[in-house]
Amino acid sequence: MAGEGAFERDRTYLTSRVTADGRDGWPVEPGRYRLVIARACPWANRAAIVRRLMGLEGVLSLGVAGPLHDERSWSFHLDPGGRDPVLGIERLREAFERREPGYPNGVTVPTIVDVPSGQAVTNDFERITLDLGSQWRAHQREGAPDLYPERWRDEIDEVADSVYRDVNDGVYQCGFARGQDAYDEAYARLWGRLDRLEERLRGRRYLVGDRITEADVRLFPTLVRFDAVYHGHFKCNRQKLTELPALWGYARDLFQTPGFGDTIDFAQIKAHYYVVHHAINPTGIVPRGPDPRGWLSPHGREALGGRPFGEGTPPRPPPVSEAVPPLV
Amino acid sequence: MAGEGAFERDRTYLTSRVTADGRDGWPVEPGRYRLVIARACPWANRAAIVRRLMGLEGVLSLGVAGPLHDERSWSFHLDPGGRDPVLGIERLREAFERREPGYPNGVTVPTIVDVPSGQAVTNDFERITLDLGSQWRAHQREGAPDLYPERWRDEIDEVADSVYRDVNDGVYQCGFARGQDAYDEAYARLWGRLDRLEERLRGRRYLVGDRITEADVRLFPTLVRFDAVYHGHFKCNRQKLTELPALWGYARDLFQTPGFGDTIDFAQIKAHYYVVHHAINPTGIVPRGPDPRGWLSPHGREALGGRPFGEGTPPRPPPVSEAVPPLV
Repeated sequence: MAGEGAFERDRTYLTSRVTADGRDGWPVEPGRYRLVIARACPWANRAAIVRRLMGLEGVLSLGVAGPLHDERSWSFHLDPGGRDPVLGIERLREAFERREPGYPNGVTVPTIVDVPSGQAVTNDFERITLDLGSQWRAHQREGAPDLYPERWRDEIDEVADSVYRDVNDGVYQCGFARGQDAYDEAYARLWGRLDRLEERLRGRRYLVGDRITEADVRLFPTLVRFDAVYHGHFKCNRQKLTELPALWGYARDLFQTPGFGDTIDFAQIKAHYYVVHHAINPTGIVPRGPDPRGWLSPHGREALGGRPFGEGTPPRPPPVSEAVPPLV
Repeated sequence: MAGEGAFERDRTYLTSRVTADGRDGWPVEPGRYRLVIARACPWANRAAIVRRLMGLEGVLSLGVAGPLHDERSWSFHLDPGGRDPVLGIERLREAFERREPGYPNGVTVPTIVDVPSGQAVTNDFERITLDLGSQWRAHQREGAPDLYPERWRDEIDEVADSVYRDVNDGVYQCGFARGQDAYDEAYARLWGRLDRLEERLRGRRYLVGDRITEADVRLFPTLVRFDAVYHGHFKCNRQKLTELPALWGYARDLFQTPGFGDTIDFAQIKAHYYVVHHAINPTGIVPRGPDPRGWLSPHGREALGGRPFGEGTPPRPPPVSEAVPPLV
């Protein structure tokens, strides 16, 4: 499908799973694994959100790679001494090398690392959130929601597939296109999809059913980065998110829901995209705009009904050690 | 004043003047001169607007350099055979070379060229609009407004000076900064000034007095390019112009006034900035957004009073040969 000049994402991951029954050799165990994310990365953002919603902070620790990396690896440049305090490594690649010397594929976040061996277990981002929601059930907080209920799975998968293709990956297709035609195509697909999502969310609070599901967890990380990065840096500039009333209300609603906005660090997001992508921003200058305070404005979406957590409850605030900076 | 990494504009121009008395050897004569602009360029846009407002189309012909140029010259790449049909030259530099072989300074638009000799007379953009308004008075249309009335000159100069420094040139200071500090400073000055202009225009229809003056002619070309180019490409992204109610209403009011919007070609504007500035947009990909149709929406600014043309009248539509494409 991808035409000339189109960006193609490397989707080769370590696909071992951490499961309740340990079928891949990596059984769920409290305290054994470390979830490595970067605040900048939308794919990692999903895992950070689900870990919060499930209340897994006490059983699955969090490593945070800094916003800057080179072509070969994310690194822990924000940690004291430039090393992850638990894994003791400077670069995430080291965990992949321990798992497979000469590891040939992309070193991406999120990655779950086995702390005792220092080995990366999986960086399969789609599987990670589903497994945090299901395989870790014995260790989830009381009131943790079911983000992937049986009765809505087909619909969640369908929505998430098109959101992945046209929006989550679509913004990268716009930004990393190597020619005008490839960009134009990606732009048309992105906005076609955003128009349909805007329509869908006009009369309903969440994407599927009456509560937060995996579908929302997957759309949110792209929306929250949209005006800060994708609009200008990736040329997704038909409108700002703030100009799409339903999507902007929806995104703010989620942002203000415990577990979502408290995973967002706009400074790290902007630093990552604008500094790392030399090929599209050679100066490395990071824009000061936009003003993020609008994320805290009233959204009025409660009037659409639904229960954010279904029969469950919201998570408590994050541990102090994991708190993100205030918006301004 | 300019700190390290700050962009400094080359302001060395040919400063001969075309005057009624011909004191510099270039007397005003109908049909003798050609005003060369580029639709892309905001400095040239001023001259195109004043020529329209003064109704000089029949006495001062218009050459239009295309949006693309190299470091050395604007060129007539949109004209048949790539040559200006009146001057017969491919590159504007040729007119500067005829005036002064080895011309060492920037070849910029607007430039007034003496057609018989093929020599560039002046590219002093600030002087050009003032002279079109005063020196060409004998050839202006009936009802041409006075854009620089004696009684408001001090105020016009004062407003225009700060607008030049912080806004007209300020957006370039943001976009061409070579370091974060220089960018941050320019961004702060730009937005400080835009906030003051927003305040000023909240209760009055035009910048100075009760009618359109040089001050408005100078601010408009930057505002009309703001969301299309400066917001993303130059990282002037605290807000879009459309998010500043008074400035957005003011800019639309002018856009919809004969002589302003009919000089604007958004496709050429975007092509110029995004293709020519390799150093900040190496891919040369031109964003498809934003949707420009909002420029035609009602602005309600008539309620603030004032008369756009004072005792004068609006100009007629431009000659068909000079018409810009419709917005969409």
